[in-house]
Amino acid sequence: MIAPFPHQYKTQLEWTSDRSGTITAGPRTIVGGPPPDFDGSDEWWNPEQLLLASASLCLMTTFMAMTSKYPLKPRAFICRAEGTLDKTPLGLAFTSIILRVELRVAVNEIERADRLIENAKKYCIISNSLKTPVTLEATVVAD
Amino acid sequence: MIAPFPHQYKTQLEWTSDRSGTITAGPRTIVGGPPPDFDGSDEWWNPEQLLLASASLCLMTTFMAMTSKYPLKPRAFICRAEGTLDKTPLGLAFTSIILRVELRVAVNEIERADRLIENAKKYCIISNSLKTPVTLEATVVAD
Repeated sequence: MIAPFPHQYKTQLEWTSDRSGTITAGPRTIVGGPPPDFDGSDEWWNPEQLLLASASLCLMTTFMAMTSKYPLKPRAFICRAEGTLDKTPLGLAFTSIILRVELRVAVNEIERADRLIENAKKYCIISNSLKTPVTLEATVVAD
Repeated sequence: MIAPFPHQYKTQLEWTSDRSGTITAGPRTIVGGPPPDFDGSDEWWNPEQLLLASASLCLMTTFMAMTSKYPLKPRAFICRAEGTLDKTPLGLAFTSIILRVELRVAVNEIERADRLIENAKKYCIISNSLKTPVTLEATVVAD
């Protein structure tokens, strides 16, 4: 059962040292800071990676929810996300996000899997919240 | 030094079981899946929390980068992010994100801190990439 809308989500970020901080959601914690390209480090999560993680996880969870309604038994699902950040007339922003999905299913389910992953992209809450164009490049192969 | 634009960012997500998966960026890994409100669990990071984490971390890192240029010595920085997800004419999406910042500085730096945090919001790459309106509610207090 999906809870009635609207839904509320919360996180907390506390600055700890220099330019990094601790991000908390319920019992979970990660360390975040700027990426190497912005004078940061690769020691921690950066905002850019967290956005890509959010978009790809949303695509996967939407797709997996659909597989119970329109029965499909995926055997493997990998999503490689790539984001390009560039100058725009409105300032620095992501100018493109590509979600490259590799999906393995039984040979007789390839067509259905193709349709479902395209639909999951349409209903992805994170893609729907972004100005940045999000492109899905799905490869569905028989396992 | 900021690296020349465009920048490229990457993550990888691999489905592991049921509706959850492992998200990897360089050497770091987190587990993600749907939130309780979408038949998921509070055991893992969900896409909604990752988006809020991304937006608040971007605000903080942008602000901290500015404090070296326009000298300011913040003593504490906490950002509580709250996102509302609701039905829209274009499907489910985030309809609002509020970033509640509590910032502590020396009493003679309150005015500068107020200006810097407002500017950091304007230059935040993640906010600039979102359709969702992002509201900053900053409280700057003397430490």
